[in-house]
Amino acid sequence: MWENGLTRLLGVQYPIIQAPMAGGVTTSQLVAAVSNAGGLGMIGAGYMTPSQLREQIQELKSLTDKPFGVNLFVPNPYNADQERIAKAKNFLQPILQELHVSKVEPKLPSFEQDVKTFYEHIDVIIEEKVSICSFTFGLPDSKILRKLKENSVIVIGTAGTVAEAILNEKAGVDAVVIQGAEAGGHRGSFLGEDKQSLIGLISLIPQTADQIKIPIIAAGGIMDGRGLMAAKCLGAQAVQMGTAFLVCEESGAHQLHKEAIIGAKEDQTVLTKTFSGKLARGLKNRFTEKMSNREDEVPDYPLQNELTKTIRKASAEKGTSEYMSLWAGQSTRLAQCLTARQLIEKIIQEAKELSSICT
Amino acid sequence: MWENGLTRLLGVQYPIIQAPMAGGVTTSQLVAAVSNAGGLGMIGAGYMTPSQLREQIQELKSLTDKPFGVNLFVPNPYNADQERIAKAKNFLQPILQELHVSKVEPKLPSFEQDVKTFYEHIDVIIEEKVSICSFTFGLPDSKILRKLKENSVIVIGTAGTVAEAILNEKAGVDAVVIQGAEAGGHRGSFLGEDKQSLIGLISLIPQTADQIKIPIIAAGGIMDGRGLMAAKCLGAQAVQMGTAFLVCEESGAHQLHKEAIIGAKEDQTVLTKTFSGKLARGLKNRFTEKMSNREDEVPDYPLQNELTKTIRKASAEKGTSEYMSLWAGQSTRLAQCLTARQLIEKIIQEAKELSSICT
Repeated sequence: MWENGLTRLLGVQYPIIQAPMAGGVTTSQLVAAVSNAGGLGMIGAGYMTPSQLREQIQELKSLTDKPFGVNLFVPNPYNADQERIAKAKNFLQPILQELHVSKVEPKLPSFEQDVKTFYEHIDVIIEEKVSICSFTFGLPDSKILRKLKENSVIVIGTAGTVAEAILNEKAGVDAVVIQGAEAGGHRGSFLGEDKQSLIGLISLIPQTADQIKIPIIAAGGIMDGRGLMAAKCLGAQAVQMGTAFLVCEESGAHQLHKEAIIGAKEDQTVLTKTFSGKLARGLKNRFTEKMSNREDEVPDYPLQNELTKTIRKASAEKGTSEYMSLWAGQSTRLAQCLTARQLIEKIIQEAKELSSICT
Repeated sequence: MWENGLTRLLGVQYPIIQAPMAGGVTTSQLVAAVSNAGGLGMIGAGYMTPSQLREQIQELKSLTDKPFGVNLFVPNPYNADQERIAKAKNFLQPILQELHVSKVEPKLPSFEQDVKTFYEHIDVIIEEKVSICSFTFGLPDSKILRKLKENSVIVIGTAGTVAEAILNEKAGVDAVVIQGAEAGGHRGSFLGEDKQSLIGLISLIPQTADQIKIPIIAAGGIMDGRGLMAAKCLGAQAVQMGTAFLVCEESGAHQLHKEAIIGAKEDQTVLTKTFSGKLARGLKNRFTEKMSNREDEVPDYPLQNELTKTIRKASAEKGTSEYMSLWAGQSTRLAQCLTARQLIEKIIQEAKELSSICT
């Protein structure tokens, strides 16, 4: 029932991919548990140093002999607008005070350094013979794609619109994640305004499937067997789930983050640029409320991300989720704290039952 | 394959409901064609007088002996803020000039009159023995619901969130339309801010299905057999389709409207209050562009709707769709100009093929 072109390509039993959530969520325990249970575990390497990435890959090899993947952020040039940075520091200051954090001068990133790290990540992936590499925030250049392919790395792109999916196919990726408006965390889009690409999955998958031939991986709001079967009907060959795995026992997400998601209602998320400078979906809290009129004022990603880092960290340390970035998709009511294996087995069981009822 | 509690209740062959689009789209030819092909045709009576409604119901009885339904807007009190009205007239004036329309003093609606018309509509439905009545923009009061039930009218509500679906069930409706963020036209939501209820269907249906027992009708972005089967997997017993029927041959939508939808890309719609005062999804055009910074300034629905009426009409008469309200959902790439029967047969055929492939 589950074998298709994509599961064969990836070498997995089930068409279930654990979304590569960056920032410590994708522990080796989580990634290995997903892969060992027949899904595809993914390392979210977006914020890692090359040596951290290498270390985690090596650790994973000791925990699973199944395939797993690594996700990288494609660096995009940004505008280090000093006026915006100064203004943002200013309007973030009262929150730092509220959290009793002494003023810290954040170390701002540099695009050149980001590009250098990105190339080093690619080298680590090739040297460590990781079999799957996915990209968000853009398309890597043709040189990198060629290099990965020459080294037998399967490449997965990310798209939020049909046009982006077509560009991915033209670039030569092996499969593409189609991110619906429901998805939690950062928008993976890279063309035009972020807000243009807020298309619901039930619309986006069939319209994309009509235009491309490479396999589609559906992402956004899928957390159970119903979502998996729906994605399949719409034209996807697999699903990628973030929030569902974020609340799993093995996930490295902060306990406050997990607790905030479990019990949240479906209309309690918001799309905001104010945590990082890039549009992302997460639960409303005091931070998103206070920043609701700052959407057009924040510096570009990843500058704002650095500026809010101390706040997010201090919030977690003080035991409150009110100033943390509580990334979550729109299906929060479906969240359950299980092990990754229990989650995957539950989904496959539900999907099997549905396939007999639904037809 | 298609019989379920809802199709039995409604007395239809297929779980396909034509969305009750107000403003002349749901001609008797369209409604009858849908019902005669095994779906449920619906009259969008929102902007009709009671005698217009009675006339169309009587005409329909001569065109079909199958069930059909009527949709009503539940009147909501609004604020006739004179300052806002004057300001809106002012910023709409340049468009009237551009369209060479001499200044007309719009006849503003009155809430008391709207309520009176609403009650008269209910009487017409009962007197004409229409078997199905659906509501948007709110829940009718318990007296009306009781009256409809006593007269064996099946009642369908509309919800954009789980909370609204639960309220519908508690009120005693027989089924509820769950409107996803993908949907074209007006948001049917009635609690809280309109923007809170922008949940993608792939998230909203399963979360709602876990909380209510009455049948769910999925609406938003569904235009083919893939969407129908996905909705079924997610927990819906039927789909309601607007855009798909709007472009059908029998639909009364303006030819410019149909042409604008066919060929539009999935990311060319926008959510705006500026046509009517109530949030609605339609294709971007010169009107939505010019009004993009007026979202927070427009008078309440239905005041703004009256203020823009002359503009929309003049635009159509001048042969341009740039100032028309081009309501459309997010699946525009799937739009095809067929007869309603061809569309329904195509969907059923696609769904049948899928059900054998997908399992």
